[in-house]
Amino acid sequence: VVEMPEPTPATPDPPGVRRRSGPRPGNTRSRRQILEAAKLAFAANGYAGTSMRGVAREAGVDPSLIVHFFQTKAGLFSAVVEWPYDGTRVAADIEHVEIDALGAYSATTFFGNWEADEQRDPMISMIQAALADPAAAALLREYITVNFALPLVTRAGTDQPLLRAGLIAAQLMGMGLARYALAFDALRNAPTEQLIAVLGESIQRSCTGPIPPA
Amino acid sequence: VVEMPEPTPATPDPPGVRRRSGPRPGNTRSRRQILEAAKLAFAANGYAGTSMRGVAREAGVDPSLIVHFFQTKAGLFSAVVEWPYDGTRVAADIEHVEIDALGAYSATTFFGNWEADEQRDPMISMIQAALADPAAAALLREYITVNFALPLVTRAGTDQPLLRAGLIAAQLMGMGLARYALAFDALRNAPTEQLIAVLGESIQRSCTGPIPPA
Repeated sequence: VVEMPEPTPATPDPPGVRRRSGPRPGNTRSRRQILEAAKLAFAANGYAGTSMRGVAREAGVDPSLIVHFFQTKAGLFSAVVEWPYDGTRVAADIEHVEIDALGAYSATTFFGNWEADEQRDPMISMIQAALADPAAAALLREYITVNFALPLVTRAGTDQPLLRAGLIAAQLMGMGLARYALAFDALRNAPTEQLIAVLGESIQRSCTGPIPPA
Repeated sequence: VVEMPEPTPATPDPPGVRRRSGPRPGNTRSRRQILEAAKLAFAANGYAGTSMRGVAREAGVDPSLIVHFFQTKAGLFSAVVEWPYDGTRVAADIEHVEIDALGAYSATTFFGNWEADEQRDPMISMIQAALADPAAAALLREYITVNFALPLVTRAGTDQPLLRAGLIAAQLMGMGLARYALAFDALRNAPTEQLIAVLGESIQRSCTGPIPPA
């Protein structure tokens, strides 16, 4: 890969004009090149095996530009592996779900997302990254907690909300990995409707049932 | 690392004597060298980033010797990352646990194993490997099912045993990763006794409670 120079802006600034500090066209192109190189690198080498320096080399840009755009490897990764659905929309929806339907709602949403290949694969990659890197783990924790688990528990209005949110996150992650990544036969072969019923009951208990005291 | 020749057996076989086909002393040493090199390689490069050829090079042996001893990368990995407790002992214990104490028994055993660093780290490595390689996933599925989840459900004597075993495996893996690897604050900070109570109730339901029909 040849190191490519940043293109010169088409028209030079007139004297005395201070340009807005928005992205230059060359930056936009570099950012896209970095994301494309990073996507290939993460797919080929995994999260731990990918370096920002290697991505810069493949993208034909200076490593400092990656830091400029994405700050860290975790930041680069989260830009590449965008969580495949709009979490803020889910959190907004939850405010309108009946409290005794929170489990059914979340199980239905969960399996809807995990059944689709193009949504499942990035989620599995994100979990793999989180297991390899504390910064990626922090991203994933925040994502699940803020956009899904805590809104459910807040809507339920029960005690120990953060513990309940953690228990919900553990159940969702466990089911996702066991059915779709490790592929336990009985889970893989069970009809989705049956698993929605099982997981829904369990999450409903985590939202509104009693939790043993600390 | 220098390629080392196999040492010659100390005493040649007398004429007419057919040696037993057990391991030669050189083989034992080679096997140990392979395991040491593999342990370092898996730790440094992860499961996906480790090749049998690279391990052979580091160990100073021919790659065919790794195939001879361990068959596959998954086989090599499972020899390196021995599951850190004796699963067959747990399965034997379960036969003597009261049916309504199966949840409490399994949650107590689970947290006992995961609380110890030297047991937790290999389990997380094993899960990472399973997410990267179908052969390692098959090993992990079989290990959890045969040594833990299915004995619990068999002891309970309830319907849909394989589905119940899968649900138990999902819960255990989810809790292990959420508390110890992703480190959700509320789970990390909760007293182990509280989590034993929560997980124990949940696993007891998976053992003896009703499961929605398929």
